[in-house]
Amino acid sequence: MSATARLIGVGVGPGDPELLTLKAIRMLRDADVVAHFAKAGNVSHARAIAADHLRPNVTELPLLYPVTTEIPKHAPAYCHKIAAFYDGCAAAVAAHLDAQRSVAVICEGDPLFYGSYMHLHVRLAARYRTEVIAGVTGMSGCWSAIGAPIAQGDDVFTVLPGTLDEDELVRRLADADAAAVIKLGRNLPKVRRALERAGRLGRAMYVERGTMADAVVMRFADKPDDCAPYFSIVLVAGWERRP
Amino acid sequence: MSATARLIGVGVGPGDPELLTLKAIRMLRDADVVAHFAKAGNVSHARAIAADHLRPNVTELPLLYPVTTEIPKHAPAYCHKIAAFYDGCAAAVAAHLDAQRSVAVICEGDPLFYGSYMHLHVRLAARYRTEVIAGVTGMSGCWSAIGAPIAQGDDVFTVLPGTLDEDELVRRLADADAAAVIKLGRNLPKVRRALERAGRLGRAMYVERGTMADAVVMRFADKPDDCAPYFSIVLVAGWERRP
Repeated sequence: MSATARLIGVGVGPGDPELLTLKAIRMLRDADVVAHFAKAGNVSHARAIAADHLRPNVTELPLLYPVTTEIPKHAPAYCHKIAAFYDGCAAAVAAHLDAQRSVAVICEGDPLFYGSYMHLHVRLAARYRTEVIAGVTGMSGCWSAIGAPIAQGDDVFTVLPGTLDEDELVRRLADADAAAVIKLGRNLPKVRRALERAGRLGRAMYVERGTMADAVVMRFADKPDDCAPYFSIVLVAGWERRP
Repeated sequence: MSATARLIGVGVGPGDPELLTLKAIRMLRDADVVAHFAKAGNVSHARAIAADHLRPNVTELPLLYPVTTEIPKHAPAYCHKIAAFYDGCAAAVAAHLDAQRSVAVICEGDPLFYGSYMHLHVRLAARYRTEVIAGVTGMSGCWSAIGAPIAQGDDVFTVLPGTLDEDELVRRLADADAAAVIKLGRNLPKVRRALERAGRLGRAMYVERGTMADAVVMRFADKPDDCAPYFSIVLVAGWERRP
């Protein structure tokens, strides 16, 4: 094992364990400590994806969110709680780094693309040797699973968090050739209305656990309920001017 | 080897051969035929990335672009030539599929994200059993290589082809929290002006061959020339409201 302090953000991809990269696997095998985020009381999705590649007795550092969606995210209480949580996580990781251990923080998808790892990165990367291993994003996994050519040529592709205001979603959906709407959850009815108002509902696909055995795929217009679990996304494919 | 016709789009990632996924490697090992796009007279980048995983005597099908940037892309002569080229490629792949061979089409990055494979997919996926293996995109490889947290929380992230008009680039750069500008090449001076006009030049990073041994990284404002090779990108990181 490494005797040198190193922080490594390791992307483990969108869910299918076969979508791990060789580099991610090497980092997992070499790391002294493997850290992973999860909601308190839940199993880390990233850990489940990477489970086959953890050394049997590797030191694990679970980083457990005290809150996720229970408190409105713009409330000062949420911001304060969550910043304190990340500060605590960074301190826990730094303690291992200060003891000259390498720490691999495993992340679903790609570490620097809407990932929890980023909160550690901005707190620690200036102080410690740091490496980031890119991963296959959840959105790539989903459009590949449904065989939807998402963007080509001069297409503008936009990623929109479902947390945005409805009018903002409408404006941006109408302005993009192709889009992925992430962070659905309780925002699903709003996202549906925005797609309809933007004239994009007919092209929108709903994908749940895209690369996993129990994937759910349907035209969003056909989705009979407003229920969207964690691993879900809405995709609007572009590329309307095909040669 | 497979005795069943199957078209497989295989993403081989952004350049570092270690960023191949386990699934891509399995597909390469099992395929009867490995196809790859390149400009006539050039070596396929995707093939170079995947070279270690091709079977020694696998049948290869090079698909060689007759033109790339020599003719303006909106010219009818270009559209006609390139559509005829893709039709010919699809026919060549279909001939193998009709002979019950599996054909892996290897692609840099992710097959359905601005990739050449898409032109085969739309021509063949309705007729043959098809599978797409998601890959790490070039942009993920680049922001990981420079350790730039690209987007988080409510950030809107946009991918902009450098081929867009300057005013369009300005408007869209100013409207996004985070952006990746692709297809630089001869568009680099225009992209630079657009970033300046949008007030984003100071945050823009220029990355060339991000995950490769000879990577070049600099603040775009510091780039002394207007020369951008194939594997280059401009990244504008978002996430300005960090908790």
